[in-house]
Amino acid sequence: MFLERIVSEGLAHFSYLVGSGAKAFVVDPRRDCQVYADLAKREGMRITHIFETHRNEDYAIGSQDLVQLTGAKVLHGPGLDWEYGEELADGQRYRFGGLELEAVHTPGHTYESMSYVLRDTSAGSEPVLAFTGDTLFVGDVGRTDLPGPEHRRKLSELLYDSLHKRLLTLGDGCIIAPAHGAGSVCGGDIADRATSTIGLERTQNPLIRLSKEDFVERKMREILERPPYFSQMEIMNQRRHLPLSGLPVPQPLVPGEFAEAIGSGAVVVDTRLPHSYAGAHTKGSSSIWIDGLPAYAGWLLPYDRPLLLVVEDEQQVERVVRMLVRIGYDNVQGYLRGGMVQWYREGLPYESTKTMDVHELKALMSREEVFVLDPRPHHEWAELHLEGAKHIFVGDMEKHLEEIPKDRPVASMCSVGFRGSMAAALLRERGYDNVAVVIGGVNAWKAAGYPVIEQ
Amino acid sequence: MFLERIVSEGLAHFSYLVGSGAKAFVVDPRRDCQVYADLAKREGMRITHIFETHRNEDYAIGSQDLVQLTGAKVLHGPGLDWEYGEELADGQRYRFGGLELEAVHTPGHTYESMSYVLRDTSAGSEPVLAFTGDTLFVGDVGRTDLPGPEHRRKLSELLYDSLHKRLLTLGDGCIIAPAHGAGSVCGGDIADRATSTIGLERTQNPLIRLSKEDFVERKMREILERPPYFSQMEIMNQRRHLPLSGLPVPQPLVPGEFAEAIGSGAVVVDTRLPHSYAGAHTKGSSSIWIDGLPAYAGWLLPYDRPLLLVVEDEQQVERVVRMLVRIGYDNVQGYLRGGMVQWYREGLPYESTKTMDVHELKALMSREEVFVLDPRPHHEWAELHLEGAKHIFVGDMEKHLEEIPKDRPVASMCSVGFRGSMAAALLRERGYDNVAVVIGGVNAWKAAGYPVIEQ
Amino acid sequence: MFLERIVSEGLAHFSYLVGSGAKAFVVDPRRDCQVYADLAKREGMRITHIFETHRNEDYAIGSQDLVQLTGAKVLHGPGLDWEYGEELADGQRYRFGGLELEAVHTPGHTYESMSYVLRDTSAGSEPVLAFTGDTLFVGDVGRTDLPGPEHRRKLSELLYDSLHKRLLTLGDGCIIAPAHGAGSVCGGDIADRATSTIGLERTQNPLIRLSKEDFVERKMREILERPPYFSQMEIMNQRRHLPLSGLPVPQPLVPGEFAEAIGSGAVVVDTRLPHSYAGAHTKGSSSIWIDGLPAYAGWLLPYDRPLLLVVEDEQQVERVVRMLVRIGYDNVQGYLRGGMVQWYREGLPYESTKTMDVHELKALMSREEVFVLDPRPHHEWAELHLEGAKHIFVGDMEKHLEEIPKDRPVASMCSVGFRGSMAAALLRERGYDNVAVVIGGVNAWKAAGYPVIEQ
Amino acid sequence: MFLERIVSEGLAHFSYLVGSGAKAFVVDPRRDCQVYADLAKREGMRITHIFETHRNEDYAIGSQDLVQLTGAKVLHGPGLDWEYGEELADGQRYRFGGLELEAVHTPGHTYESMSYVLRDTSAGSEPVLAFTGDTLFVGDVGRTDLPGPEHRRKLSELLYDSLHKRLLTLGDGCIIAPAHGAGSVCGGDIADRATSTIGLERTQNPLIRLSKEDFVERKMREILERPPYFSQMEIMNQRRHLPLSGLPVPQPLVPGEFAEAIGSGAVVVDTRLPHSYAGAHTKGSSSIWIDGLPAYAGWLLPYDRPLLLVVEDEQQVERVVRMLVRIGYDNVQGYLRGGMVQWYREGLPYESTKTMDVHELKALMSREEVFVLDPRPHHEWAELHLEGAKHIFVGDMEKHLEEIPKDRPVASMCSVGFRGSMAAALLRERGYDNVAVVIGGVNAWKAAGYPVIEQ
Repeated sequence: MFLERIVSEGLAHFSYLVGSGAKAFVVDPRRDCQVYADLAKREGMRITHIFETHRNEDYAIGSQDLVQLTGAKVLHGPGLDWEYGEELADGQRYRFGGLELEAVHTPGHTYESMSYVLRDTSAGSEPVLAFTGDTLFVGDVGRTDLPGPEHRRKLSELLYDSLHKRLLTLGDGCIIAPAHGAGSVCGGDIADRATSTIGLERTQNPLIRLSKEDFVERKMREILERPPYFSQMEIMNQRRHLPLSGLPVPQPLVPGEFAEAIGSGAVVVDTRLPHSYAGAHTKGSSSIWIDGLPAYAGWLLPYDRPLLLVVEDEQQVERVVRMLVRIGYDNVQGYLRGGMVQWYREGLPYESTKTMDVHELKALMSREEVFVLDPRPHHEWAELHLEGAKHIFVGDMEKHLEEIPKDRPVASMCSVGFRGSMAAALLRERGYDNVAVVIGGVNAWKAAGYPVIEQ
Repeated sequence: MFLERIVSEGLAHFSYLVGSGAKAFVVDPRRDCQVYADLAKREGMRITHIFETHRNEDYAIGSQDLVQLTGAKVLHGPGLDWEYGEELADGQRYRFGGLELEAVHTPGHTYESMSYVLRDTSAGSEPVLAFTGDTLFVGDVGRTDLPGPEHRRKLSELLYDSLHKRLLTLGDGCIIAPAHGAGSVCGGDIADRATSTIGLERTQNPLIRLSKEDFVERKMREILERPPYFSQMEIMNQRRHLPLSGLPVPQPLVPGEFAEAIGSGAVVVDTRLPHSYAGAHTKGSSSIWIDGLPAYAGWLLPYDRPLLLVVEDEQQVERVVRMLVRIGYDNVQGYLRGGMVQWYREGLPYESTKTMDVHELKALMSREEVFVLDPRPHHEWAELHLEGAKHIFVGDMEKHLEEIPKDRPVASMCSVGFRGSMAAALLRERGYDNVAVVIGGVNAWKAAGYPVIEQ
Repeated sequence: MFLERIVSEGLAHFSYLVGSGAKAFVVDPRRDCQVYADLAKREGMRITHIFETHRNEDYAIGSQDLVQLTGAKVLHGPGLDWEYGEELADGQRYRFGGLELEAVHTPGHTYESMSYVLRDTSAGSEPVLAFTGDTLFVGDVGRTDLPGPEHRRKLSELLYDSLHKRLLTLGDGCIIAPAHGAGSVCGGDIADRATSTIGLERTQNPLIRLSKEDFVERKMREILERPPYFSQMEIMNQRRHLPLSGLPVPQPLVPGEFAEAIGSGAVVVDTRLPHSYAGAHTKGSSSIWIDGLPAYAGWLLPYDRPLLLVVEDEQQVERVVRMLVRIGYDNVQGYLRGGMVQWYREGLPYESTKTMDVHELKALMSREEVFVLDPRPHHEWAELHLEGAKHIFVGDMEKHLEEIPKDRPVASMCSVGFRGSMAAALLRERGYDNVAVVIGGVNAWKAAGYPVIEQ
Repeated sequence: MFLERIVSEGLAHFSYLVGSGAKAFVVDPRRDCQVYADLAKREGMRITHIFETHRNEDYAIGSQDLVQLTGAKVLHGPGLDWEYGEELADGQRYRFGGLELEAVHTPGHTYESMSYVLRDTSAGSEPVLAFTGDTLFVGDVGRTDLPGPEHRRKLSELLYDSLHKRLLTLGDGCIIAPAHGAGSVCGGDIADRATSTIGLERTQNPLIRLSKEDFVERKMREILERPPYFSQMEIMNQRRHLPLSGLPVPQPLVPGEFAEAIGSGAVVVDTRLPHSYAGAHTKGSSSIWIDGLPAYAGWLLPYDRPLLLVVEDEQQVERVVRMLVRIGYDNVQGYLRGGMVQWYREGLPYESTKTMDVHELKALMSREEVFVLDPRPHHEWAELHLEGAKHIFVGDMEKHLEEIPKDRPVASMCSVGFRGSMAAALLRERGYDNVAVVIGGVNAWKAAGYPVIEQ
């Protein structure tokens, strides 16, 4: 038995390649799917089946891309209007050498959510491992808010039942292999550990230990951001799309060409760290640091215009492209060759953003009317924030601009500076002239002994 | 939490790198240990501790080599005369970021055998994972015959207690991470699946389900080969040795140089498949196919003479060297550049061995007095063998030569041909002129419908 | 200026990636063309142009495949009926940053053959380097026999003029970058050194030093094999074809599946060395050792049937596939998983071929009527052969079968054994039952002091 | 013949691995020398000889390190007090398969400088390629100022003779393989092209075309910076030193550990780009951008204290370490894990430097008494600089601090910003409080149409 977890950083997405003898299957493949084919080739296996745990919202499903590479058959949960693949029924079983995989319908996160239970028939009939998708994570369970408020209670109840009647019954010794790890937007508090078992979750997962009533209430109260690209993914993941044939390769563009591409309507994503961005950037660019792309690109970048990249080190281009295609941004036209250095070396105009440290902010707050903006997701704000700050999540800022004054200095302050930079860039673009990013953020503020409000 | 299993093929040896934050530890490192340092570097971690589950017999411990790369501290079980590292006591605990590792004394395979139990303190106090060394495998348990017959019953009883009182009590949900997988000489019947839990072993492991009395009897009756290099490893693993600094790089030798090196006392290991070896090989060479090195080199190759390699494809040299250093053969002097082709292209003398298929053997057996030699390990012979064959394990042949007639044709026949080739080479070297290798072996014989004796 | 030579082993084909600033071009790309795109990506360059030195006969041009990856423009010499790309005129110039490339018409090898002369405009106007295609090699010049006997004299004269009037005039200091190196079938005696200059060729190239008359006579007398796949390449290289999107990935096939694929009409190519092949192979398979594929596959394998592979080590599969697609064999269906060992382990029927060494052959020749067949190319035979052997080039054997007796033992003997194995396989397939391969070949025969005829 | 140029970026250092058959040699190996051993292994060659063209000043010779890996013999030019290797005499010859290498004494750059002339004996007696060390570059010739002013005229005359009597006489067709390419501090104006010939240099190299008298005068007038580490290299390169066994691996240090290491006397090198450095850096750190390390580390970093790294992306650590060991900085203790972000996330104190663009500088210059400091090497200043700026090369600043006012704002301005940042960091460290870096530098200034003084 061959089993390998493939991790997509940032998305904290786990997919799996499993094989026995010459046959293999993949659970929840990502878009840049050469990795599965390469591993299978190395192991002398053919990928014959692809199992999807659900339609997914936070990333673009790579099944159609992987079919193109391998000719495998795609299998989904029932009830959705899929334009590709086949629907599974609860209880359906598949053989792969000495392994048997059983589809178990576990609605809750979505109606069609499936788990897949693996048995090693040479060892016994007890389930050895369960691919639990977004139903059960290590230390957390799936969201129930995505299909909409009218479904939420129903889904929360279904989820409770799926967990208790379908998964916990697999036995304490059954290993779980979920679709996400710590850091995913698909869970509020997934543990920073990829490995667990039914037994461990039964005792350690705080949500599993609740009564059904408490569980449903807790899920009804949960506040998690819902990036607008989720809708895009939900559609894309049910439709046929043109499969990737290899990773897109953005062209190296010299400053003149880059400027021209901007002029033709392309959107600039600057993936450098806050200081670099603050120091010099092209007018109108978005500031999303490289590891923040999976979580934030989908809030800020359009799907209908080509993207241009500004990176710190050109060896990062491929990493950026991978992160973008995984959430459906395939049209990455080019990157600035030589980076911002080349841009200003050639005398092209750039913009800067002010930065300040927490001591400057403190001084400023006591002296004048500074507007402190906290653009973090709600749960981070709830945990710890600055007294006197105003919380508007960066993804919602467009709808709340009237709450941010144009006639006062604005200090954009997150936990460290990344989202602060992102929000500041957006405000600059909307005509705010007096915006600064607070470097160090609430963490440094608290470390300096300044007053905070903590959960 | 970072956890990665590093597999040494052939030995079916599992070692582990585990880290949290910037600190990491390794369990049971192998000799060619750059892999741990590279992984730690990639993850931004320092390897600070090395935990040994026991002294090991089937491979050379790489701790001293890894100390040279990392400066980590080595920790062993108690009671042996270690020349390096420190001894642990039962119950000793170590912190690595959010992880806690507890040493649990689990004698049985050896007296000093330790298991290591991992807890994720942020999630709860239940054991999450146990490194079970050679105490508990997936589907099997450790050998108790190695320290000698006088210890065997005692160790079997200790093992039973370690399993039932120390490991099964960790809870069904605890994942197990053993030191070996399927194919290891350290277990008779380890499952071909690396992943399991206490719960699964409690229900699926045939040895765990026995009563103490039955368990001890079963262990007392178990017949497993004991390669002579085990003694070498036991000594080497307790003593200080000169650490490897990088993998040895055998020199490419042209035929003349290769012949000269043979003349100076080096021993030739020919790692090609049976047919290639049979067709042409240098006089006096050993025939051990590449993937058979971990299991058979230690039976046939001396530790006090330099080794020379003949390989099928020169890109295999590094793989061969890795396999050899893992069992303490560091002195690999060179390889034949251009292979046997270059050797006979230059007109140097070579030898051939006869091959035959099962139909020829069948015909021969009915016609004349052929002596059919089965050189496989005892348990393979016990499972399935040819009627009329004589079983002498290849590793024991030197002591049983008088049982093999010199005046009759000998057909050396294993399950497929690898060990047959190995035994034939050895007989040729001892002056047997009329030896043939049966290609296809007992498997093909049985497939042809000829009579076999099966368990 | 960036310049890299990309070597296709076996074909001894040289292609080049050249760039300056952000722009790059490729000369004579091969089919498996990801390498150019990867290098350009690493260097931050865009491949904008592809220059072909001529239509090529010995390999499949990769321009259309590379266009698919890069969108570059393809440029050819004039006068052929190309279905893609554009025609160049003599003297046409292109700028790439500080470089200038001039197309120089150098007919001779073919009518449309172009060379490309590079100048570094920042350094001066003297030619720095010339891509000389199949016009001028290191130590040799291009063939003039391929377009047919009626063109041969004309082309030889044209070649002389192209060399003396267009290339030698570039100046002694001009570096040459030809399309082939030692071992190519495109030259009889190309030097085993990739690097040269006009000055070195002027003094060291034996063909350059001839008078026009002597040169033409020498070229008229030249005997070089013309593999039948050359015709296939000539056609394929002028036509549009479906570009490769990535390298084909043959499926791992277990013995049953492999046998089934043979039954459905696929052709088996066994790339193992002579001994392995001789020991056991599937009935009807072709024996072409791995490094012999570029030179011999095109003589023996059909283009209209799927291919199946038997390899020595499964890590060689990708290398074999590369070699095959480079000469237009894209339909590689699968490979035997586990190799011949797995085949006979499962008891499937196989065939063997006899082998003998030169001493056995010598004895046989004195005892009986053995027919010694030498299947090597003409120039090798001319250099050195066995007294009493019969020369029939393996590629021509089908047409000369009547010259090979069926009622006498045949000893197939090349210089070492590879082509001997190939010829023996072919004879077996044509019903010859008594064929043996002479291991060591003429080289070992000569080394043993037996009589040979030398040039 | 196998020939590969190995480029050390930044140093623009070229070394060469050359082989024929199973034997190979290296010319001018660098410290991180695994690359040669790996290439030789891939090609089935043994590195038996190492040839040094001269003692070298700009990098640490890797011969002793490579001897440790390979056991090769080191050969130097005559007359120096070498503690390792052997001295060569002019005309000494070595065979490597079909190649012959001749040592040719070419003093000028240093007294013991050697060139090595390669002949391909199978092709003819004309030199095919010459390794010209620091004697002849593409488009330039070696420096003659390093051994000291008293030797300069003598060396310039010797260099002229070596060039004209020993190298130009090799024939126009001889390829040259120098020790440096464009960007090296070992030449003022080496062409951005690695490949040339004697013929091309005879016509295109501006220094070769001068008369002896003009040549010597030109060399006497040449002003090139002489980094203080050159002296360190000259000593290190003649002495025995402890060879590297693998690349040093700096430890990941969390902010607290990093601060502690600073406290214990380690020196921080911050390799980020100017903006990142300006935004936040640890007090007292040096600012040397990653690709500037080879040229500037040797001016600013001590050899007797451990180094600590701050990098933009942790995947750059190995690249930084390579660059440092190549100039003898082996003691790289650690790097800041998580970068400056982690540093200020944990609330540790940092410093910032002001930045301004050229328009702000222009405004400031018209308003107040700003001191514009240009810290570039002399030849860059000579080519183009700002009216009213003061030139003090960054490497000499310590000795000229009294020329820089403490009571006025200082604008540090190079061509783009890298050296400006470096100089500003140094001034901050020396107690200058009012220093700003001009982003875009003279290039942007000129592009904006502001007045400059050009050569």
